[in-house]
Amino acid sequence: MKPVAVRAIERTEQAVVDGLAEQGVATVHEAQGRFGLLQPYMRPMYPGARIAGSALTVLAHPGDNWMLHVAVELAMPGDILVVGLSAENADGMFGDLLATSAKAHGIAGLVIDAGVRDTADLTAMAFPVWSKTVSAKGTVKATPGCVNKPVVCAGCFVNPGDVVVADDDGVCVVPRETAVQALQLSQARTESEKKMRARLAAGELGLDLYGMREKLAEAGLHYE
Amino acid sequence: MKPVAVRAIERTEQAVVDGLAEQGVATVHEAQGRFGLLQPYMRPMYPGARIAGSALTVLAHPGDNWMLHVAVELAMPGDILVVGLSAENADGMFGDLLATSAKAHGIAGLVIDAGVRDTADLTAMAFPVWSKTVSAKGTVKATPGCVNKPVVCAGCFVNPGDVVVADDDGVCVVPRETAVQALQLSQARTESEKKMRARLAAGELGLDLYGMREKLAEAGLHYE
Amino acid sequence: MKPVAVRAIERTEQAVVDGLAEQGVATVHEAQGRFGLLQPYMRPMYPGARIAGSALTVLAHPGDNWMLHVAVELAMPGDILVVGLSAENADGMFGDLLATSAKAHGIAGLVIDAGVRDTADLTAMAFPVWSKTVSAKGTVKATPGCVNKPVVCAGCFVNPGDVVVADDDGVCVVPRETAVQALQLSQARTESEKKMRARLAAGELGLDLYGMREKLAEAGLHYE
Amino acid sequence: MKPVAVRAIERTEQAVVDGLAEQGVATVHEAQGRFGLLQPYMRPMYPGARIAGSALTVLAHPGDNWMLHVAVELAMPGDILVVGLSAENADGMFGDLLATSAKAHGIAGLVIDAGVRDTADLTAMAFPVWSKTVSAKGTVKATPGCVNKPVVCAGCFVNPGDVVVADDDGVCVVPRETAVQALQLSQARTESEKKMRARLAAGELGLDLYGMREKLAEAGLHYE
Amino acid sequence: MKPVAVRAIERTEQAVVDGLAEQGVATVHEAQGRFGLLQPYMRPMYPGARIAGSALTVLAHPGDNWMLHVAVELAMPGDILVVGLSAENADGMFGDLLATSAKAHGIAGLVIDAGVRDTADLTAMAFPVWSKTVSAKGTVKATPGCVNKPVVCAGCFVNPGDVVVADDDGVCVVPRETAVQALQLSQARTESEKKMRARLAAGELGLDLYGMREKLAEAGLHYE
Amino acid sequence: MKPVAVRAIERTEQAVVDGLAEQGVATVHEAQGRFGLLQPYMRPMYPGARIAGSALTVLAHPGDNWMLHVAVELAMPGDILVVGLSAENADGMFGDLLATSAKAHGIAGLVIDAGVRDTADLTAMAFPVWSKTVSAKGTVKATPGCVNKPVVCAGCFVNPGDVVVADDDGVCVVPRETAVQALQLSQARTESEKKMRARLAAGELGLDLYGMREKLAEAGLHYE
Repeated sequence: MKPVAVRAIERTEQAVVDGLAEQGVATVHEAQGRFGLLQPYMRPMYPGARIAGSALTVLAHPGDNWMLHVAVELAMPGDILVVGLSAENADGMFGDLLATSAKAHGIAGLVIDAGVRDTADLTAMAFPVWSKTVSAKGTVKATPGCVNKPVVCAGCFVNPGDVVVADDDGVCVVPRETAVQALQLSQARTESEKKMRARLAAGELGLDLYGMREKLAEAGLHYE
Repeated sequence: MKPVAVRAIERTEQAVVDGLAEQGVATVHEAQGRFGLLQPYMRPMYPGARIAGSALTVLAHPGDNWMLHVAVELAMPGDILVVGLSAENADGMFGDLLATSAKAHGIAGLVIDAGVRDTADLTAMAFPVWSKTVSAKGTVKATPGCVNKPVVCAGCFVNPGDVVVADDDGVCVVPRETAVQALQLSQARTESEKKMRARLAAGELGLDLYGMREKLAEAGLHYE
Repeated sequence: MKPVAVRAIERTEQAVVDGLAEQGVATVHEAQGRFGLLQPYMRPMYPGARIAGSALTVLAHPGDNWMLHVAVELAMPGDILVVGLSAENADGMFGDLLATSAKAHGIAGLVIDAGVRDTADLTAMAFPVWSKTVSAKGTVKATPGCVNKPVVCAGCFVNPGDVVVADDDGVCVVPRETAVQALQLSQARTESEKKMRARLAAGELGLDLYGMREKLAEAGLHYE
Repeated sequence: MKPVAVRAIERTEQAVVDGLAEQGVATVHEAQGRFGLLQPYMRPMYPGARIAGSALTVLAHPGDNWMLHVAVELAMPGDILVVGLSAENADGMFGDLLATSAKAHGIAGLVIDAGVRDTADLTAMAFPVWSKTVSAKGTVKATPGCVNKPVVCAGCFVNPGDVVVADDDGVCVVPRETAVQALQLSQARTESEKKMRARLAAGELGLDLYGMREKLAEAGLHYE
Repeated sequence: MKPVAVRAIERTEQAVVDGLAEQGVATVHEAQGRFGLLQPYMRPMYPGARIAGSALTVLAHPGDNWMLHVAVELAMPGDILVVGLSAENADGMFGDLLATSAKAHGIAGLVIDAGVRDTADLTAMAFPVWSKTVSAKGTVKATPGCVNKPVVCAGCFVNPGDVVVADDDGVCVVPRETAVQALQLSQARTESEKKMRARLAAGELGLDLYGMREKLAEAGLHYE
Repeated sequence: MKPVAVRAIERTEQAVVDGLAEQGVATVHEAQGRFGLLQPYMRPMYPGARIAGSALTVLAHPGDNWMLHVAVELAMPGDILVVGLSAENADGMFGDLLATSAKAHGIAGLVIDAGVRDTADLTAMAFPVWSKTVSAKGTVKATPGCVNKPVVCAGCFVNPGDVVVADDDGVCVVPRETAVQALQLSQARTESEKKMRARLAAGELGLDLYGMREKLAEAGLHYE
């Protein structure tokens, strides 16, 4: 794979991105037909962050964070750095210096299939990170990878410019081409769930609300 | 295994349940002779919750949360939903709608050998959950399982009506038949530990307090 | 391996220890040439703790915390208990009674390649712990091990009296013989990073700051 | 849990046991409705063994194989030792001496949720073993457990006298009460699969054989 | 993601495919610049198989092998089935019936990011399989996925028609566009390694053969 | 840690090494008091190998096998390469070229806390390897480590010249200073087990042979 950095990519319209952030991972993932979810080992560094942004994709090599510096120059405000690795790795590839640089260039957060370090500083800076692990193991700058080329991150395929939604439930990728549709489906779902929630809170049973009793009987459920 | 839901089960007396909650997992587990502890991968969704309740057991299939709706109807206030799976699974089988329904029916918490989603909402609702993981992956409603039949959850056998104790240290199951005895043993242990704690806090050594010096010498410990 | 407890060990000067605590794990690990980092599965029980201390080493057997009592007697104020296991184990080998005793004798914290229990109490006591897991499973007192003998903990070799630095990023061991040098290198690194941070915060790129452009081109990176 | 060894248990008729061995794990598991499968981490020590037998259940403690000796005395020829642990453990709890003793008493094999050692000897003896891992770590004889009491093994509930079927695909438990029915369902399944196999071998497509085309179209599958 | 099956794809020329099979995974992976390697948890079901083929890609859902039947119809002799999952799963999605059908249609082997069953039969048939695990857990046919659409399998992106090389060292994907070049680079590498091997076998040191002594000294290696 | 290669080390007498190989891992580990066992994830590449040798220790960095070439020059016939890593890594750090070189210099085998590749070739050469995994991922030669300095390998501390014993049960390290004693204890154990084995094969029970009945009754075991 030849090391390439692509300067110009198509991004998703900011209003769509913001709408998807508001919907959150669980709703968006469900609404777009249950795909695009990164492996559940991708956890937020601190609770409470909920962001969305266009993916600024990076392919990095294990123990080597060189391409993250290349990516920062190519960032547009609101982008989310999405880092895939050419082989499994848990080193701390991102720390407070890179976070300072990323923040200065308007990067909204980091999704990395490896480790991060300086977590106390990053938390204090309120720079949101979803990673595989925390590790103080620093990295070298020796082998170039790619920026803004398609990448596999935590089991998911991400194209540059796709929307990445991330919150306490994990990380979901929405293809740029279907982002508007995903937002509409998410909003419809949220609307319909609002009504369900009120009825369930009032004590109505899911069995009745969703008309499950007959189907359960057909499927062979027997009461004793 | 035929899909069955049992309407009426024997529960443990509430005073005993409350007493066990007060004692906490580590004490109860030790007091009843070190059994009944679910695998340590069962972690609380947020810190600080400490509950106990009668087990409302559910056998569910991977990626299918149908039986949780069946269980809600059969719940009594104070019950804890205990969900075992017929095969390993990490999908998010429980989210804010089910939590709303469970709360409306007085369910005190959830112990599930799978994933949960909408964790920010569940935390805001203060609905306590112990699970294997967090995942936004939703589930289908296709294959019936069982409610209020014995179930294996995170390596432990749980009968409906057994007491489940859960806190920051994990989850412990107390058989209904021996719940009173387990409470008494736990209380005795707590009482005796109170005295120990005071003496240890005053600087007395465990070596002296527990009379270990002679036994260590016998076992061959040598000081240099 | 004969069970031995060594009463007198050489410790590291307190000013050096305190200086290393201030520097933190990521900096110290990097400054001393990227070694001495315990496996990243060693996580803090609660966030925010940052300590350093001389290692009071313990070799314990799975499911047996006898030697921790032996160690408490041999502690000097400021020591950190470092517990390696003779075989993999996840039992809760340390709880609130031992923590009470350890605190009474001035022990500054615990690093254990096994589980801990009573985590709510330990957090309330603000007794810092780095461990492999949390488990309510208690332990026996049956087989003697060693105190103040070299030990392997979470993949790292630790001599008694080495400096242990621990914070939200993990745990790092600094050999006693090179502790002063490690502190100086860490301080120099921190000083130089301070300047870098200011320039990066002002928007300067890592590409320019570290002079990476030419090296990236040489390594074959191509822009599109 | 009080340490108890039960001398007399009901076993399954040998002809039924033998029939189930012939059917194998995948068929039996499917035929009885997809339950009773031990976690897939339970692997055979050497390839090619396929056995079934009545379960001689053992509850053992981590690092302690005392109860296996108790079990050998209570064995009937053809029994399979099924060992569950009171907490996760990977020690080598069974080696060539115990295998020699087990073989002398007609025990047909071992299913253990822990480790085994002396694997070269056990393979030479052709004593079939399904275990979690291989480990040379020996065990003590210190804490009694149970024999012929219900036990959880690798996530599955096993009653003494249930049929255990084990081969290269893993281990499946068949309740004694439904063993005859499980055998009949398995035989019917094998019979019907024989015909399917012949037609598939002749090039007929599963799509046609199982009438899937219409259902796939209904489910939304689109050909390009 | 809409369920789609693509009938016609571009495949790689058979001579190139055969050449890559001869080179093997380690050489091809190295020769094409160290990318395209599936995660090392993908292991062969039996040792000794070495194959290559054009990828017939399948996106399947956890516990559902419906699309594998769809794929068989679209196979060309020599294709390798490459199955990615929409979420982590270890069920036994492929057994002897599907293998019989796949073989009848000339499919050369299977690479699946899930489990397989009937392993004794598959081994007897000499149908080569690389999978994540072995599990007797069967699957349903309920949710359609995709055939011959790009898929992520064990952390790697695979396009339909890419070359898949698999042997005892694992599985490597070679993009169709660069397959000829990858073969040439592999052959050149094999040629040069042949000479190296002879010299190393004669006792020459890698230090001299690769001219490492000077570089090691520069990098600071010191002999004692 | 300064990169150092030590030319001359003390080795263990060959007769002692050979004696320990004959005894095997399980016996030696037990005889020397249950320490020195590498983590059970260290598995043989092919079954049936049983070797012992003096440890030629290597500290390598993740993804970098440079020091293995340095080590080959310093080998004496019969040495076993023992490779520890400065951080967790699963790359294939050793393949057929290095094996050819190692064999030419009389190295008896490899124990590596990382991956290996070219496993079919290595098996054909009958070069015994114990490793963490198999991976085709090759390595660079960029950062020097150490040869013949103490190293942690798979959780165990190994000094250069210690005896390494390895077979199907795993890998055990015997300190050079106590190797003669470990051999004698192993031989005595083997002798006594021979008698036990004969009596157990004749049907005598472990309960009687080891006089367990009384101790079990004391420990509270109750028969029903």
